[in-house]
Amino acid sequence: MQSFIPIPRTLMGPGPSDVHPRILTAMAKPTVGHLDPEFIRLMDEIKRLLQTVFQTDNALTLPLSAPGSAGMEASFVNLVEPGDKVIVLQNGVFGGRMAENVERLGGTLVRVESPWGRAIDPAQLEAALKAHPDTKVVAFVHAETSTGVKSDAKTLCAMAQAAGCLTIVDCVTSLVGCEVDVDGWGADAVYSGTQKCLSCAPGLSPFTLSPRAAEVIQSRGTPVKSWFLDMNLIMGYWGEGQTRAYHHTAPVNALYGLHEALLIAVDEGLSASWLRHQRNHEALKAGLEAMGLAFFVPESERLPQLNLVTVPEGVDEAVVRRQLLADFNLEIGAGLGVLAGKVWRIGLMGYASRPENVLLCLSALESVLSASQAPIHRGVAIDAMQAAYSAA
Amino acid sequence: MQSFIPIPRTLMGPGPSDVHPRILTAMAKPTVGHLDPEFIRLMDEIKRLLQTVFQTDNALTLPLSAPGSAGMEASFVNLVEPGDKVIVLQNGVFGGRMAENVERLGGTLVRVESPWGRAIDPAQLEAALKAHPDTKVVAFVHAETSTGVKSDAKTLCAMAQAAGCLTIVDCVTSLVGCEVDVDGWGADAVYSGTQKCLSCAPGLSPFTLSPRAAEVIQSRGTPVKSWFLDMNLIMGYWGEGQTRAYHHTAPVNALYGLHEALLIAVDEGLSASWLRHQRNHEALKAGLEAMGLAFFVPESERLPQLNLVTVPEGVDEAVVRRQLLADFNLEIGAGLGVLAGKVWRIGLMGYASRPENVLLCLSALESVLSASQAPIHRGVAIDAMQAAYSAA
Repeated sequence: MQSFIPIPRTLMGPGPSDVHPRILTAMAKPTVGHLDPEFIRLMDEIKRLLQTVFQTDNALTLPLSAPGSAGMEASFVNLVEPGDKVIVLQNGVFGGRMAENVERLGGTLVRVESPWGRAIDPAQLEAALKAHPDTKVVAFVHAETSTGVKSDAKTLCAMAQAAGCLTIVDCVTSLVGCEVDVDGWGADAVYSGTQKCLSCAPGLSPFTLSPRAAEVIQSRGTPVKSWFLDMNLIMGYWGEGQTRAYHHTAPVNALYGLHEALLIAVDEGLSASWLRHQRNHEALKAGLEAMGLAFFVPESERLPQLNLVTVPEGVDEAVVRRQLLADFNLEIGAGLGVLAGKVWRIGLMGYASRPENVLLCLSALESVLSASQAPIHRGVAIDAMQAAYSAA
Repeated sequence: MQSFIPIPRTLMGPGPSDVHPRILTAMAKPTVGHLDPEFIRLMDEIKRLLQTVFQTDNALTLPLSAPGSAGMEASFVNLVEPGDKVIVLQNGVFGGRMAENVERLGGTLVRVESPWGRAIDPAQLEAALKAHPDTKVVAFVHAETSTGVKSDAKTLCAMAQAAGCLTIVDCVTSLVGCEVDVDGWGADAVYSGTQKCLSCAPGLSPFTLSPRAAEVIQSRGTPVKSWFLDMNLIMGYWGEGQTRAYHHTAPVNALYGLHEALLIAVDEGLSASWLRHQRNHEALKAGLEAMGLAFFVPESERLPQLNLVTVPEGVDEAVVRRQLLADFNLEIGAGLGVLAGKVWRIGLMGYASRPENVLLCLSALESVLSASQAPIHRGVAIDAMQAAYSAA
């Protein structure tokens, strides 16, 4: 066996997205101790930068030392005690995982399903809250990575809060790619991942808890089932100043990378980043539609950073993806769950959301689909893309 | 805020240890997708390399996507169901965490304590097994990071197995630094960390499960309380071939680093690595003892990779550590738990276990202790170190 030399790819799937070269360089800097004063300064900066991108003043804002799925688990394992009633609004794979978390923890699950590929319908939440006035937590996914759908987090959080419920909101794919406004929404537990619109390597989960949620955790009747994710302990490690209580060894080099990713995001500015994601999405859309390809999600519910495209009749979607990878080192994503075989997931996330990638994706798709005799319009996608950029 | 430029340190604490430059370089390679065929090949190689360093044929040998504490939690959350009786042999901080895991999961805890700074006494396990014939799991720490003590894993595992119990063994600090022989011991769940003798960045937990343990997990009566650490799901992702079920997004760049670290360890050879750790330990010991400093742990129970040194009377240990860091960029560790203020923990782990570091540590300690009027013998440590190397 030899040292691993990865083939350079362009990552336009549902994540990981292309990692910015500045971030790769940051991760290779010499490791320092996790209790080193220099590192503690870094931790403080990361907390402040995360507050900025989450748009929150929550003191409990920090990266968990594990991927986004651990952020989901941390939310549920800390807020849900056995017997607690939890409404999970599900419109894709990741809402399903939320439901599984509730069941494993002995919570009482109220599952409210919306169609895959559609936003969550606030009327359904209203009905569920009325039917279950003893609900403690309402949980949903802001940006469903399995369907490319954005739900109206502001409205859903407001309804939950009016009913006296806590909210858990999955922002794995939304953070930095479209508006996430934790304090504006009044959300209580929000988590994300590093490998989507932050363009950082996968492995960490940015996480934030409202003071209300922190209070609920501190006054639990039963111990948190997880030692590793017990926020009572993690708070002691990520708390203020030099009096940190050792909990676990922080993933030092991964945090170098996250710090750099957050600097890049904050330097660009959140609104500028959302606008960039929207513009590149419009250009991709124009090109794909000119080719004759259709989007799976209604326009007003689409995530600009994750485009679900219906696979044309008679085309083997896996063959197309393999060809894109083999011929052009371009990765796009497959459908997940019930959408397997039916859609592609094309990500334009963070550093990968650039005109040169839109161009590459349109040209490569046209090349591969043409070669496989798929019924597409040829020679028109680039003009359509160009027109969309000019109109923007 | 600006990009973080760490001050280069020499890491001779209890971990993280100095990361090998080859590993830093590996982590900065371009990220590929976690379902990329190239990455799946890397995962297969990592599994094989981990089997080599763990000395096991266990098919279920893989790195968990979180630090060593998650490895501990994965062991307990998968093997312990509510009401299961677990004997925890505790002789330091990390045995205490094991006990906490059992309690949080609703297991019935039998805690057997040995003095801090001493190996676990097999006679105590014998008595506990006799008193509790309905025990399901015996858990202990092979190399206690809080005390620098090595326990006799082979004997303890054999006794547990004879009583029909499963074993959970913490090898966070031992792996690659001294013998870990999973199949020879007959251990059932063994976990480690990347930031000790593998000299890799912190953040992952090498993990292995015996077929017997896997069977117990597959036939559980209750679901695993953790979705993120449920081995039934993780097995599906790290299983053989191209039919992997997506579970979470693997920490791609961290795994590049682990692959490189494992290559370095296997290229050196396990016996050669253990011998190197032992020789550098002997040289450090000779120098420290010549200075008049004393070891905290009886000679036969010491870990060569983690040296607990008693702080001399009248010396403020924290001042000394701060001075070592300020003057020489040298990090050594403080005492943990009941040993806080009483000992230093000096690591010679992996890439950090080198004669130049032994020399640096002895010289720097002599410089700082002399300046603070500590009662040490001066000008003799280097000769003693040199003599030890010559005798080896």
